Amino acid sequence: MNFPAIFNVLGALLIFIGSTMLLPLACALIYNDGDALSLAIAMGVTVGIGLPLWWSYRKYRDLTLKDGLFIVTFGWILVSSVSAIPFMIHGTIPSFTDAFFEMMSGYTTTGATILDDIEAVPHGLLFWRSTTHLIGGMGFIMVTIIILPLLGIGGMQLYKAEADPGQVITGEKFLPRVKQTAVWLWGIYLALILIQSLLLLLAGMPLFDSLCHAFGTVSTSGYSTKNSSIGYYNSAWIDWITVIFMFLGGMTFMMHYHILKKDWEPVRENTEIRWYIGFVVFLSLLTALILWITGSYSGIFDSIRYATFQVVSILTTTGFTTADYELWPQSAQMLIMIACMIGASAGSTTSGIKVVHYEIICKYLYATGRKFLQPLAVVPIKINQKNADPSVVTLAISYFILNIFMIFVGSAILTLIDGMDFYSAISAVIAALFNIGPGFGEIGPAHTYSHISAAGKWFLSFNMLTGRLEMFTVMVMFYPSFWKK
Amino acid sequence: MNFPAIFNVLGALLIFIGSTMLLPLACALIYNDGDALSLAIAMGVTVGIGLPLWWSYRKYRDLTLKDGLFIVTFGWILVSSVSAIPFMIHGTIPSFTDAFFEMMSGYTTTGATILDDIEAVPHGLLFWRSTTHLIGGMGFIMVTIIILPLLGIGGMQLYKAEADPGQVITGEKFLPRVKQTAVWLWGIYLALILIQSLLLLLAGMPLFDSLCHAFGTVSTSGYSTKNSSIGYYNSAWIDWITVIFMFLGGMTFMMHYHILKKDWEPVRENTEIRWYIGFVVFLSLLTALILWITGSYSGIFDSIRYATFQVVSILTTTGFTTADYELWPQSAQMLIMIACMIGASAGSTTSGIKVVHYEIICKYLYATGRKFLQPLAVVPIKINQKNADPSVVTLAISYFILNIFMIFVGSAILTLIDGMDFYSAISAVIAALFNIGPGFGEIGPAHTYSHISAAGKWFLSFNMLTGRLEMFTVMVMFYPSFWKK
Ligand SMILES: [K+]
Ligand SMILES: [K+]
Repeated sequence: MNFPAIFNVLGALLIFIGSTMLLPLACALIYNDGDALSLAIAMGVTVGIGLPLWWSYRKYRDLTLKDGLFIVTFGWILVSSVSAIPFMIHGTIPSFTDAFFEMMSGYTTTGATILDDIEAVPHGLLFWRSTTHLIGGMGFIMVTIIILPLLGIGGMQLYKAEADPGQVITGEKFLPRVKQTAVWLWGIYLALILIQSLLLLLAGMPLFDSLCHAFGTVSTSGYSTKNSSIGYYNSAWIDWITVIFMFLGGMTFMMHYHILKKDWEPVRENTEIRWYIGFVVFLSLLTALILWITGSYSGIFDSIRYATFQVVSILTTTGFTTADYELWPQSAQMLIMIACMIGASAGSTTSGIKVVHYEIICKYLYATGRKFLQPLAVVPIKINQKNADPSVVTLAISYFILNIFMIFVGSAILTLIDGMDFYSAISAVIAALFNIGPGFGEIGPAHTYSHISAAGKWFLSFNMLTGRLEMFTVMVMFYPSFWKK
Repeated sequence: MNFPAIFNVLGALLIFIGSTMLLPLACALIYNDGDALSLAIAMGVTVGIGLPLWWSYRKYRDLTLKDGLFIVTFGWILVSSVSAIPFMIHGTIPSFTDAFFEMMSGYTTTGATILDDIEAVPHGLLFWRSTTHLIGGMGFIMVTIIILPLLGIGGMQLYKAEADPGQVITGEKFLPRVKQTAVWLWGIYLALILIQSLLLLLAGMPLFDSLCHAFGTVSTSGYSTKNSSIGYYNSAWIDWITVIFMFLGGMTFMMHYHILKKDWEPVRENTEIRWYIGFVVFLSLLTALILWITGSYSGIFDSIRYATFQVVSILTTTGFTTADYELWPQSAQMLIMIACMIGASAGSTTSGIKVVHYEIICKYLYATGRKFLQPLAVVPIKINQKNADPSVVTLAISYFILNIFMIFVGSAILTLIDGMDFYSAISAVIAALFNIGPGFGEIGPAHTYSHISAAGKWFLSFNMLTGRLEMFTVMVMFYPSFWKK
């Protein structure tokens, strides 16, 4: 490991995070809720550590793949730690465990909160809390689409596959120059947030709330400024605007780029988007039908509205709520549970198993069945109209199975260290690992994560990070060979 | 499909099933509980249909692979249907849905019951109920180890792999002549049942109960003659005898053969047996530790006794109970849930995902991780000290993933057609699909399946059959190409 070069990068990261604290600081000064000082101190500390670190090691370069993986994993932990400072100084969240959990939940775009009364938090800190989503969502896209492929020539097929399965399969390059890619991605991301904020504002949501919710929507994260989330506004307009932007946040960002460029060939060829739309429509309509038939809502339109919101929110791993779905009929709850397991598109801000992996796995299973009947049959696995690379298939399968294992083993660990009932524990691990936020039982939409033990919170933080970095980045650190020269 | 030849085989099957009804008939005549007539009528009907069917089509031969798959699937359904007759005639189980469920549960070695008061059932019918386990357990071994490999030269790698992974991988043949294999397997199976019956008798269990429980143990099925299962006897001796024979029933039957022949080489080379023992010891001890520390039982020995019994019972998919594990601490329940997901050895009477598949999957995941760090690394997957055939790896993976899919989709269907709470539905699908029997919630050890709707019972019957025939046999029938010429 090239630690001097790593320190240099981490120093730069701290400077960046410290600078972003200017936003909530400005907000705190405007609203004057008494949280400005805590933000100013945190900013000073963060930049005060980052600046000398970056400067002292500025001459060190040449990061290897392993250094890159280490920076990504440890960077997320470091950033969450310093971001916790203002909450602890101000006293909103006095414990480091809780503040770290809240920030890790923010940066990993999980949106699981330990705050039992969000509305009591001053505006500056609330804005900072939502800003972590803004940074986390984009940070993840940058890491998977730009930084990791840059670092690992040959070794990062996973991330290339995540970024755009078509890229690996066809060898096609997405925008030759990295800087240009970054500018495009940031541009699309910020444009979506801006448009959503404006629409929410037009729909009657206050400016502050609009910004915070837009940060949490496009990044598919889910922190709200209200205790009852989007449900607080009780507005069909706001619900549908949020649905649309959650859906867009769950699309491969490459797709936005192609659509903007009127480059229809990759859009037409992309099969994941069809599966994604298919899952959204099928699960929303089936849930709506159940809600309508059982009379859970007064009519078919309200049934569609609440069902679609919750399905899209969970499918895109956003985690906003407009209803306590635990009061819904059991079959509707089961569909929400299934949505938890699916996720949205690869190369988006969403987490979870993701649609493209299901597409690959389903085609793989079909091929196995065909070979069972006709042993000599050659059944190719096609993604985006082209034969999939075997390494992409292997990664999709490994990723799915590893997630299932993590859920079972993780739930057992959680029941051991927390004493939570085991159904809730399974749900909590899924909600953390897939960066969803709300789940079922003790962490259902009507509850928060505040009652969980300190050990449980640390374990769930680990799951949020592992899930956000798509498993392998974190998991390979447990290989002895990772630490060898 | 060669239906005349299929009818011939199904006719022979009916004659066989009808003949086995002599056992419970003899039992009914001895105990004179008033169930002899119903058994005699059922026997007459079964043989009365089977005999002309077999005779009329006796000249038809040449079964294809597809015919074989059809016979196996449909045979199980036909046999369950005729076996339901005595229960319906006698009135113990008046509804065909319930009686069919009970018999399908018996033949698939599931042991899930709809009888709320087992002890009220007359002896003859009770013996018939347990005899279905005897037939089902051996029938499954015959199908997977003998009939299917015979039928499908080249196409049945799955079953060869199930029968003995070493066989496919090394090309080694298990006993050249099929008849000899059958004799050996029946011999081992019946010898185990006989020895267990004698030991149970010596431990103080009545002869009738001993036989019924031995039928349900070695076949890892789980029907008891008592409402509170093995727990009724409250005897440490009976518990430990049952544990040992459940464990032996969960071992590859090839292993018994090799051990009897003092052929130590395949035993030493077999890696699944080590993983199997590892899972048993690890899960039992961890559960015992939890039970002991939380004071669930009075001492460490009772904790080990109850923990080991339940872990082995669930791991081997037997489903006997000596305790209502739903009253245990949540972490212990979670371990039982994990045991549900693991299963025992391939080539045994057990169902579920099975240890060898986990062994293959874990090695596959490790290889994926290694390649992630060292893209050029060649990481072979070794089973039984030899490199595994890629087709065996593919089948292990497909089988695991298909099971997970079946659980999620199946639970959604079950909540839709039954209105059961969705946690119980997930558990019910797992308990049926993996042929375990008891689960959690509404189908926990303190409950039966009687309250489930008719549609729910049919759906769970389908799951029991699909699980018993290891998915692919049943699933391939949904391929249009299966029905083509
Ligand atoms: K989220
Ligand atoms: K069973």
